Parts: sequence; C-alpha cells; structure tokens
Amino acid sequence: MSTLGDRVPVRLVVGVDLKTVAPILVPFAPIMNEARLESPAPDRSGRDAIDVGAVRTYLLDLQDRITAACEAEDGGRFREDTWDRGEGDRGDEGDSADPDRSGRPDADRPDEDRLKAIWGGGRSRVIERGKLFEKAGINFSDVGGDSLPAAASARRPELAGRSFRAMGVSLVLHPENPYVPTSHANVRFFLAEKPGEAPVWWVGGGFDLTPYYPFEEDAVHWHRTAREACRPFEEALGEPVHDRFKRWCDEYFYLAHRGEARGVGGLFFDDLNEWGFERSFAFLRAVGDAFLPAYLPIVRRRRETPWGERERRFQLLRRGRYVEFNLVYDRGTLFGLQSGGRTESILMSLPPLVRWDYDWRPEPGSPEARLTEEFLVARDWLAGT
Amino acid sequence: MSTLGDRVPVRLVVGVDLKTVAPILVPFAPIMNEARLESPAPDRSGRDAIDVGAVRTYLLDLQDRITAACEAEDGGRFREDTWDRGEGDRGDEGDSADPDRSGRPDADRPDEDRLKAIWGGGRSRVIERGKLFEKAGINFSDVGGDSLPAAASARRPELAGRSFRAMGVSLVLHPENPYVPTSHANVRFFLAEKPGEAPVWWVGGGFDLTPYYPFEEDAVHWHRTAREACRPFEEALGEPVHDRFKRWCDEYFYLAHRGEARGVGGLFFDDLNEWGFERSFAFLRAVGDAFLPAYLPIVRRRRETPWGERERRFQLLRRGRYVEFNLVYDRGTLFGLQSGGRTESILMSLPPLVRWDYDWRPEPGSPEARLTEEFLVARDWLAGT
Repeated sequence: MSTLGDRVPVRLVVGVDLKTVAPILVPFAPIMNEARLESPAPDRSGRDAIDVGAVRTYLLDLQDRITAACEAEDGGRFREDTWDRGEGDRGDEGDSADPDRSGRPDADRPDEDRLKAIWGGGRSRVIERGKLFEKAGINFSDVGGDSLPAAASARRPELAGRSFRAMGVSLVLHPENPYVPTSHANVRFFLAEKPGEAPVWWVGGGFDLTPYYPFEEDAVHWHRTAREACRPFEEALGEPVHDRFKRWCDEYFYLAHRGEARGVGGLFFDDLNEWGFERSFAFLRAVGDAFLPAYLPIVRRRRETPWGERERRFQLLRRGRYVEFNLVYDRGTLFGLQSGGRTESILMSLPPLVRWDYDWRPEPGSPEARLTEEFLVARDWLAGT
Repeated sequence: MSTLGDRVPVRLVVGVDLKTVAPILVPFAPIMNEARLESPAPDRSGRDAIDVGAVRTYLLDLQDRITAACEAEDGGRFREDTWDRGEGDRGDEGDSADPDRSGRPDADRPDEDRLKAIWGGGRSRVIERGKLFEKAGINFSDVGGDSLPAAASARRPELAGRSFRAMGVSLVLHPENPYVPTSHANVRFFLAEKPGEAPVWWVGGGFDLTPYYPFEEDAVHWHRTAREACRPFEEALGEPVHDRFKRWCDEYFYLAHRGEARGVGGLFFDDLNEWGFERSFAFLRAVGDAFLPAYLPIVRRRRETPWGERERRFQLLRRGRYVEFNLVYDRGTLFGLQSGGRTESILMSLPPLVRWDYDWRPEPGSPEARLTEEFLVARDWLAGT
C-alpha cells in the first residue's frame, strides 16, 4: 500500500465539489524536492479505505508515463521545474509572480495568513518548439494545508477551516502541425477532514480534444476510447457512466460568447465519491490510463500531413478561442490567478502563438467552416457504433 | 443644442457606478443606420441640464476625428460596420454571436426578455494590416432600454428596472512596430431614470498607454498631456483632478497575477457627476480631445525606428499580458461576453498576434527588463516637471 509523507498525516474524508478547490492544485503547486517525492514516510494512521498514498503514487507514475510517451513521440526532452512550499513559505521562485513588487498603491494583496497555512509541491514539465509539440506542459502537484481557505470552499462553506489535501496531474499539448489536435487531460483527488466528523473526499478529471481540422475518424476514436474506459464501470454499476461524463464535458468546455464548443469534448467528471473510494480511484486510473491510447493514434495519423499558411493561420485563430475559454471560463485558471498562484504554471496551458482577426469567417463549405458547423457542437460521435 | 432620436425621448437623470453598465456600450452595440445617425429628432422634453443629444453629437464627432487622424497617419482606410438592434430584435448579423446554434444541451442562454428590451446602434471601425496599425478599432455605440437588467446594475440594485441610455466611444490601437506603444481610450455617458424620481447619470472614461520599449520622454509626454487636460478643472475646482484619475488608472489597469501594470497608465475616471452635468461633460470632452495630442507625437517619434525578431518577439509576449488583462480583469469585456453582447466588437481590442512562452524572462539590464522594472509600476512620471 502506498503512503504519505510524514509532513501530512493521512486523513480520511467523504462528498463535495472539487471545482472550488481543484485550482489549488496548480496555483500553489510548489515543489516537492526529489527526496520527498521518492520516499514518503509510511502511513501509520490505521484509518483506511481512502488510500491517499496510492493516489499519489499513481499520479506520479501517470505523469512519468505520459511524459515518456510524449518525449518518444516528439524526439525532444521536457524541461522539469520542481518547486516546494513549506508552511510559512510564499514559495515563488521568480519575481513575476510576486504581487508585491509593483509599488502599486491599492492592490488586492494575497492573504498572507492563508498562504502560510498551505504547503505542497509540484513538478512542471514543459517542452517548447519540439518537432511535434510547439508547446506542451504536463504538471503534477500535491498541495495541502491545515485550514481550507474560505475562498477555496465558497461553494461548500462547511469545508472552510478543514485540513485538506489536493493533488492531480494536468496536461495540455499544443502540436505545431494544424492537422494534429490539441489535447488536454486532468485527474485530481481532493480530501478534507475535521476531527470528529466524516472525512470529505472526491475525485475528478477527464480529457478533451480540440481539433483544428475536421476528421470524423479522429473524433470517433477519441470518444470510443473514452467509452471503453467507462465500460467496466457501466457494467458493474448499471449506470450510463460514459453518457453522463461525455455530456458534462460538452457542457463544461463551452464558449457561450461564441456559441461553440472548445473542441469535440471527451470526458469530464467531478465531485465523484458516490461509488466509494476503491471504485472511484479505479475510475480515476481508467481515465488517466486512457489518455495515451485515445490521443497517440490521432497524432500518428496526422503528424505527417503537409500544411501551409492557410492551415497555420486557421490554427492560430482557433487557438484564440482556446485562450478565451481558459481565461474567461475555466474555473481552475481563474481561481488560480485570483488567489495568488504560480502564474507561469497556471498559464502553461496557453498556446504558444495566437491570432485574433476582426470578424474572421471561413469560406462556406471549407474544412474550416465544417469544423465549427459540424464538430464544435454537442454531438453523439458514437451513434450506431 | 443637439438632440436625440425620437425613438428615445430625452430623459434626464443624476449619481452612480458606470462600471456596472458601461459594458453595455460595447456588447449590445447594435447598429444605428446612417439615417438615424445623421438626423435624430429634436428634443422636446423640455427637461434640461443633461443634454444627451450634445453628448451623442460630441461622441460621433470624436470618433470621426480620431478615425481621420489614424487614417492619415496610417495611409490606409478603416472598414466600418454599423449595426442596429430595435426592440425585440436580437440584432446579431452573424452566426458567431448566436448562442443558440450549437445544439448544446444545457447552455446558459441569454435572457430573451431582457434582450428584447434593449435597443441601440453602433459603428465599429477597424483597420488590419495597415502600414502603421497592425490592428486598430474605434467604436461608437449608443444603447438604451426601457428597463435596466438586474445583471447590469448589480452594484446599484436601485437602478434595476429604470429606463436607461448608455453611449460611448472606445478605441484600441495596436501598431506593428514594437517601438510604437499600444494605446486605449474610452469616453462614455450613462443615464437612468424612473418616473417621479431623480435621474441618475454619470460620465466615465480615460486613456492609457502600453509601451513595449521604455522611453521616458514618451511616458512623460503622455502624462503631461493628461495633466494639461485636467488643469482647467483643477483650477476651477481647487481639487487634484489629475492625481485622482491618474491613480485610479494605475489601480484599474493592473494585473495582480503578474504583479505588474498593463502599461504606464494615464487617466481613468468613472461615476463622475459630482461636478454637475455641464462641467462633467466638459471634462469628458477634454479627455476625449486630449487623446490625439497625447498619442500622435509618440507615434511619429517611434514609427521609423528599425526593429527585428527580438523586438517583435518581445512585443508578442507583452501582448499576451494585454490579452490576460482584457479577458481576466476588464469589467467591460467580461460583462459584455457574459451577457450575450456582440463578441467581435467586444474582442476587437485583442491584439492581432500574441505569444505565450513558458516562464520567459528578459535578460537582466536589457531594455525588455527595464520595461517591467521601471515602467510597469505605479510611478509619478511628472515629478519635478
């Protein structure tokens, strides 16, 4: 059985809304030096059911496996930044994330007391200007604290003040070739507890695909892989697991001001604990493990497709929509930025090069028009399959 | 005396918070066909003091003068889009702004009742890939309704349900040459009334400069022009008008997650009515009229400076901060997008081409480092002048 670092005694918990706290994963994502990452102290709490150490071990391994596969595919190496923040340590390495250096008269300053109570660590891995990936980031973070800030638990006020632990892997891959879709995946775990009360925990995550050019077979493969990951749970539970989380993904990754989806969707789930820890964690693993089989075949199918100015320009314009989603809607990004998180880790998800042209519209009937009309809509990609 | 279209009887009003409603200027910015723009019906309301028609005439003329000056400077022509929305008319010309076309299952849909009650018009003027301006937009809009939506008056709930009128000119100029700063200006007027109660009105606006390379003389000229615009009001009122609105500008255009200002500031004011209509409107004109004298000398001084890859890359990275500000913080942009406004008009402010590199930092001691360290901080540019 996996275990936790001795800095954070294992605490068990049960039922919530990670959306309010998930952002903590990225923003406060400090380091864990390698020693601590490799050799957590054993869990002697005796409490069980929720195996936090196993989640951590899985997440670290998932990050390693996805990184290795992306490196093999790209031929280049990811750069790794690890960082650490202990109690009382603001944890920024760079000036750019320090809200205090501007001499600004009346800025909202981060709540120092709150920051002090949060510790944690992370490993950010980034590649830029690779052969395949123009920019890609694969982050692990593990954050905790003795008292959950009210801001982080706005939607579940009863959690404020609990000790908490939040960890996850989050990745965004932006290929250079416009025929290769951008992809995003995230798996996360949250735990909050209070002496004498039942622990609160849940898992969340998913993956979604953002193609620039419309290929039905890619979208079908993506969703089929997602459905396969859900199938054992559907069979065991007799519930439409895939349908539920596929719809949730369509709803979440939606740009209301554009009237279009960010991409073709995939899976999105959150607050999941109703199946108990063992099965919920198994589902988390099933989703995490499905990412590479969902994405790599599409990469391999499209990466040699020749492209030119036209495709590049369209890709840059579409990337603008990606930025709009992440900065206007994405709860994790916004919470992270507003709460004093590490900006460069949070914004690693933004594409490397982006265009905004005024009122640009594709030629009717073109592949660019088909993308929006036929792909960036909620759609049952597996109908009849 | 100038007058209003007969569609909107002149209504007078007095004291608030335009931040809550200013966004309406852009987002609902529908058309005004030329006939209506040119020949409003006379004001026969008999009520006075607040001369809405004069504000409208001034704003249209200001847009014309700034457009003409920018065209003369660039050598190219702005493209004009006018649009109109009558009562009961959703007013979108294009599909891209229609939140209903995605077939999305559970989207938040705009409140049709609210939209029906808003009419208005606007002229958007845009140039792209000009000799001087890589992208520039100069918008006029004039919007009103019989009942101010609660969402638009969240900070002044007592205004909900009042009839209202909001108009303004808003511009963002993105030059291609990285040595020429980006600039933004806005002047706006708001009026809300209710039978039997005192009218509520205010003016707001300002201008701010976003240089990519640090030139003291440019920042000093910009702020000196701003101070000159304020001087007659300071003298008449015995108040530190410039200081007050200069500080407000520093506070507003601030990226907390970066710990830096968007640019070197300028002027920002809002909710201004304490001086009475005549003087407030005079101040609005003074600010609007000061924009060209503040900006053009800087353009002329820098536009021939040779630049290369290094300067271009830095400009694109800095433009990323501009996007971050507009999408994460700017109240007008966010309200507009969230309330179903015309997306292409709202996002006209975004730069044409933008970069995000992971954790990019300038070489210590370089001009790029000096920009952030010495220019993107709240600073008294006119000390001792």
